[in-house]
Order: sequence, then structure tokens, then C-alpha cells
Amino acid sequence: MQEKIIYVVGIGPGKREQMTIQAEQVLKMCDVIVGYTVYVDLLREQFPEKEYYTTPMKQETKRCLEALRMADAGKKVAMVCSGDAGVYGMASPILELAKDFPEVEVEVIPGVTAALAGSALLGAPLAHDFAVISLSDLLTPMEQIEKRLLCAAQGDFAVCLYNPSSRKRAGYLKRACELMMTYKSPDTVCAVARQIGREGEETQILTLEELKEFQADMFTTVFIGNAETENIMGNMVTPRGYRYERGQ
Amino acid sequence: MQEKIIYVVGIGPGKREQMTIQAEQVLKMCDVIVGYTVYVDLLREQFPEKEYYTTPMKQETKRCLEALRMADAGKKVAMVCSGDAGVYGMASPILELAKDFPEVEVEVIPGVTAALAGSALLGAPLAHDFAVISLSDLLTPMEQIEKRLLCAAQGDFAVCLYNPSSRKRAGYLKRACELMMTYKSPDTVCAVARQIGREGEETQILTLEELKEFQADMFTTVFIGNAETENIMGNMVTPRGYRYERGQ
Repeated sequence: MQEKIIYVVGIGPGKREQMTIQAEQVLKMCDVIVGYTVYVDLLREQFPEKEYYTTPMKQETKRCLEALRMADAGKKVAMVCSGDAGVYGMASPILELAKDFPEVEVEVIPGVTAALAGSALLGAPLAHDFAVISLSDLLTPMEQIEKRLLCAAQGDFAVCLYNPSSRKRAGYLKRACELMMTYKSPDTVCAVARQIGREGEETQILTLEELKEFQADMFTTVFIGNAETENIMGNMVTPRGYRYERGQ
Repeated sequence: MQEKIIYVVGIGPGKREQMTIQAEQVLKMCDVIVGYTVYVDLLREQFPEKEYYTTPMKQETKRCLEALRMADAGKKVAMVCSGDAGVYGMASPILELAKDFPEVEVEVIPGVTAALAGSALLGAPLAHDFAVISLSDLLTPMEQIEKRLLCAAQGDFAVCLYNPSSRKRAGYLKRACELMMTYKSPDTVCAVARQIGREGEETQILTLEELKEFQADMFTTVFIGNAETENIMGNMVTPRGYRYERGQ
């Protein structure tokens, strides 16, 4: 009997090199690649011989169900996600919907999420305790997002913000910065990374006060330091504390 | 003139396959591999022809300085870290110490940190906003760790705990669970992942109440759900919210 399996694969931020070896192995051996149109287009060139199934944004459930149906029919399916498969990715909805496909095994292949890829570009902003928060209120009540922003600021976490803005949510980053300033200094070292791992990749270091006025778009990932984060020669660096043992 | 460069490379949790393609490319082309003895031993077999420099734990500053000196002398150096290069990794101390080596360029290569690799094994525990907290008080005051635990619980973050225990810190995980229960239900779905990506890899799902009595060791990563996290057929799944659009 053939094993029925669906892989949920984090393909990293964009460049092939930022994919794990395991992710590439899975994509090589699968029959069908399923995903959001924009991410799948990054793969077509590398894997031209595959069957593809794509849906636009906001049709994730349809995409997941179709992927599970194809796996149930005996095809080896790879559902691809930008970044990691878990972090705001498709592993969660696939595992929920897989309840109705008891013969299909789900295997999650992790990847480098934007928080880590952006960090590497900027230096080491998330080198100590950190929180990741999405500003999208499409599936989360705004009150819950605001509460998390306040709690993360109160705990002096370094923070990475996903989905800081879109056409419909122009003022959200400004509001987030204002909330953070309840507990964080306006001088807190912050940064933005845009188009991570893709054409037009760019970064900028700025203060929390400046970030408040920054016009982010949907390709931007935002980093907010903790009280000890520094700008060291153009890098955003949150200390682990090793500085205290320099005497060694 | 030869370019002086040091790469800080996240090699993922352990298995070669969980490394990024880029990390492997860098290790292939570098002259010297520097790191903590245990992680470097994972690489010796794959790259037997390299020069190696290792130091035991707690000698990170010495290791960083030696790596920077070697880069300054013209060798292509890869400083390797388990998981990601930034998350509790060596990117931060290298960037701090690199101030004294102005000719040496630092390039950070991200990797799959234990929070993501463990998540993939467990299902999708970190599929919504999450916080990563280390329970090690070697370089962080315990009051700050406790405050962060409370703030993360109050914000109903899913939480990943690094360094939950060691010989000297046997009761720390219990204390962390007690603090979390100020805001989180004792029934909260939690999990532990041990030896992620290595021999003896194992996971277990349990409630926050049960986690309080769990004996973690230094090879354990701990996951604590948010209020909506479920145990779905043995997987720890935090919803993104897609369930609400099932009607599509």
C-alpha cells in the first residue's frame, strides 16, 4: 500500500540558498507543489517539471483542502510557505483540516522565517528574549494585538513585527509604536528590513520615534530593540550579555 | 587586497539536512571552523579537511576573539552556532567585539532555531504570535526572566522556553510554569522536544499542570500554548484563525 503524505514546507525568505537542504530534497521528490501564487513563482524556474496548484491570498482553506485531497488521491504533495512552515504558515490549517483525511500523514519541514533572515541582515537584533507579533487584524481582534504589543513592551522583549502595514492598515505601525512607547524609550534602536532575500532587499536602522513615522508596506519586517539594543557600526545588536566576561 | 571576512553561521538543530544550502556553501569554502566543541563535532565528519578551533562552554569571548584574530590574519573563518546565528547565538558577541577589528567584515548566515525545528516536530505550536524566553540566569537577572514570563503569559503569547533546566537550575521550569499559571489555564496545551534533529529525538505533549512537574534537561526545548492551542490527533496546534473561513 502506498503511503499518503503531505509535506508542509517552509522555503525561507526567497533565495534558493536560504532554503534548507531538506526542503529542497522534499521539493525534488514531490509530485505537486501547492502554494500562494507569489511564493510558488519563486520555485517554477528551479522545478519546471512539477505539477502546480496555486490560489491567491485569502483562499488558504480552499488551497489546503485541495492539497489534502490530492495527497489522499496518492500524489506526493508539498504545500509551500514563505519563511517557516509554522510561523503564521500553513502547518496549522493543514493539521486542523487533516482531521477529515485520516489516511494522510502530515510532515512539517521548518524554514528560516523572516524574523531570523531579517535579523541576519541587520546584525543580531533578536539575540536575547524576543516576541513575534503580526499586526494583521484579518484573523485576530485588534484589542488582542494591542494587548500583546503592550505586554511585549512591558517585558522589555526585543520585538519583531510581521505584516506591519497594508493598503487597508496604513496607520497600524504608528499605533504600535505609540503603544510600545508606554514602556520603551523613543530612542530605542529599531530597524526595518524590506524584500528580505529578494530583489530590492534593503534595510534601515532608526529610532522608535522615527519608526512611528515610517511608511511600511506589506514587504516590510520591523524590528524593535530591548533597552540594551545598540547600533554598533550600522548593525542592530542586542547583547546576550557576553560583554560582561570580556576579562576572560 | 584580500577581503577579510568572518561568517557567523547558524547550522540548524543538528542534522545536515536541516542546514540551509547557504550555510553548507559557506562551510565548504571557509578555511577554519570555530565553535563550541559539541556542535563542531557534528561537522568534522562532513568537512574533515578543515582547520578547527573549539572552546568549551562559557569561553565564548575567548572563542570570538580568536576567530576574529584569525579572520584579521586573512583566513576565511566560519563561527558556527547551533540553530540560528542570532537567537542566543554568536552573532551578537562577534558584532560587539568586531569593533576592535575594523578591517574584518561580519556576515551572518541565519538558520533554523530550536523553536522552529521543535515546532515542526510537534505540529504548529507557534503558528500565531509567540515569545521566546531563555530560563538561563547565567547572563540575565532572574527578576528580568520572571517579569518576561509573566508578561508573555498575560499577553496570551504562545511561548517557547530555551535552556529550561541544567544541573544548577533544577527547579526553574517548575517556577516558570507557576508564574505562567497566573494568567494561563493549568489545562493549556504544552509540549517538550528533546534532542531535536539528533539521535534520541523525542517529543511529548502535556498540560501546563503536568509540565510543572516535568524533569527537563539541557537538551530540552519547551512549548507552552496560547488559550486557543489544541491537541489535534497528537499534534500541538495553535490556530492562525483560518478555521473561521471554512465556508469558502
